[in-house]
Amino acid sequence: MTLPTIRTVGVIGTGVIGSSWTALFLARGLKVIVTDPAPGADGKLRDYLLNHWPTIPNAKVTQDEYLNNFRFVKAIDTYLGDLDLIQENGPERLDFKRRLFAHLDANTPEHVLIASSSSGLPSSEFVTECEKNPARILVGHPFNPPHLVPLVEVVPHQGTGDAYVTAAIEFYRSLGKDPVLVKKETPGFIANRLQAAVCAEAYSLVSRGVVSAEDLDKTVTSGLGLRWALTGPIMTNTLGGGGNFNHVMDHLGPALKTWLYDMRRHEFDVDSQDVDVLKQKVNEWTSRVNLKEIEESRDKLLVGLIKSKTEGSI
Amino acid sequence: MTLPTIRTVGVIGTGVIGSSWTALFLARGLKVIVTDPAPGADGKLRDYLLNHWPTIPNAKVTQDEYLNNFRFVKAIDTYLGDLDLIQENGPERLDFKRRLFAHLDANTPEHVLIASSSSGLPSSEFVTECEKNPARILVGHPFNPPHLVPLVEVVPHQGTGDAYVTAAIEFYRSLGKDPVLVKKETPGFIANRLQAAVCAEAYSLVSRGVVSAEDLDKTVTSGLGLRWALTGPIMTNTLGGGGNFNHVMDHLGPALKTWLYDMRRHEFDVDSQDVDVLKQKVNEWTSRVNLKEIEESRDKLLVGLIKSKTEGSI
Repeated sequence: MTLPTIRTVGVIGTGVIGSSWTALFLARGLKVIVTDPAPGADGKLRDYLLNHWPTIPNAKVTQDEYLNNFRFVKAIDTYLGDLDLIQENGPERLDFKRRLFAHLDANTPEHVLIASSSSGLPSSEFVTECEKNPARILVGHPFNPPHLVPLVEVVPHQGTGDAYVTAAIEFYRSLGKDPVLVKKETPGFIANRLQAAVCAEAYSLVSRGVVSAEDLDKTVTSGLGLRWALTGPIMTNTLGGGGNFNHVMDHLGPALKTWLYDMRRHEFDVDSQDVDVLKQKVNEWTSRVNLKEIEESRDKLLVGLIKSKTEGSI
Repeated sequence: MTLPTIRTVGVIGTGVIGSSWTALFLARGLKVIVTDPAPGADGKLRDYLLNHWPTIPNAKVTQDEYLNNFRFVKAIDTYLGDLDLIQENGPERLDFKRRLFAHLDANTPEHVLIASSSSGLPSSEFVTECEKNPARILVGHPFNPPHLVPLVEVVPHQGTGDAYVTAAIEFYRSLGKDPVLVKKETPGFIANRLQAAVCAEAYSLVSRGVVSAEDLDKTVTSGLGLRWALTGPIMTNTLGGGGNFNHVMDHLGPALKTWLYDMRRHEFDVDSQDVDVLKQKVNEWTSRVNLKEIEESRDKLLVGLIKSKTEGSI
């Protein structure tokens, strides 16, 4: 089975994620049919597209084309026959997604790939009422904002067809993104689990007074994070072991075990009063700094970092 | 108590860490007395210094001064009276460090700060035989390589004097490093614990076949790590919550709990056969890529990233 070239994308929902997807699709020269029921969504999307144009890397069209190659529609039903792919960005509510996907599946030509930006709900849970072709439905979960950060987690359900998985990966890659394949549906997929692992330990260390919130973050931004922006945990281990991952596992295993044991003993409890202690310690820091300045510096540096990584071919 | 300005540093041990510290101290205009009992250590150190000169950010001296402001000595005892600070980088063996620190404490003027690069042993365990002034001993644990990566974890033991803690933090900061204060001795300090949290979950996901080793790393390098190079987990949460960390905790708490519960159920066991499965899956990937090229790209990009962060004042 060969899927048709993707030229026109349907975007459902224009919150932060849907607007950013739209910006990316347009900058890559695709046509977009986009809808959102919220009052004023049309104007907000136009503002978003205009404001974010300067930050989009490697645009393939002029600003004029980027701003004119989309149509905002009140109801997408009459356009479903014109789409080659749908990227859905609706609310993360199971009842809502179940109804929406049953409707999309019933009314969209059966070869059209339908991807959900869902960060939490696996597609197996919301394709349950799809009768036409649930095999073309999967999750394509981006990292915010999708027009900038390359990661997208492609998560098929057990009934998703391999050709659709391949097509989704190829499509995202053609946009300049770095898709990863999550082979088994797993709560939090990959990124949120790794983030939860770091956050849980960070919250424990800060709430227990081992380190300040500011110094906890500095441990990452001035150390761990610098490496992880360039090589992931496994390649970092491998290079640290002189090119031999096995060596690191054999050498580091016992220490890892000791650390993990101590971490479990002091595990952060989301339901305990530790949460209040944590909030207080974090607020002591964040109330002293200029968050707007930090965010602006971060966004600017992020664009530069992604650019230099592309050029440095890592 | 005011500690004297640090002009001459003693470096004990010239493995990877000790050589890199020496390069940093010299590039910042300090004099260094350095020793290592290994055969050929003198020549290896000279080679290291020459090779790494081009990568040192913000050198304050000429290359000639950098290469000539140190003295490699066979025994450091006769120089202990000339030092303002000692950075120790010996083997991570408790009996060895106990003997070494007892000897250094007994033979170094009592005001001289003695910092250990120890990554695992807390100083409370190896100052037990120091009788003169154990209050000037603490851990100053760098992230590899110290001449490049700004992080250094300052870890006092319960008996370390506040003035020495402050002096160590000021000294490292004067070198352009980002010291963090670990207020309570904790196995793995901060960085190794956070790294262990990520690695344990990464190993579990890869060994269970949820994601390939390559895609696991990509989840970090194309997503999480890009942010963590610029804002740590807590500031990332805060900015994600529109400037309000409390909001994120209230909103994300239940999801975090679900993910952590599932992660505990599938926890990676360092003592099980999962280790062999993991090694095999990692080796399948790393045997296909050019590790030397990746390492060279990483090192080059790391220098650029640190430079652009300094200029971007984040």
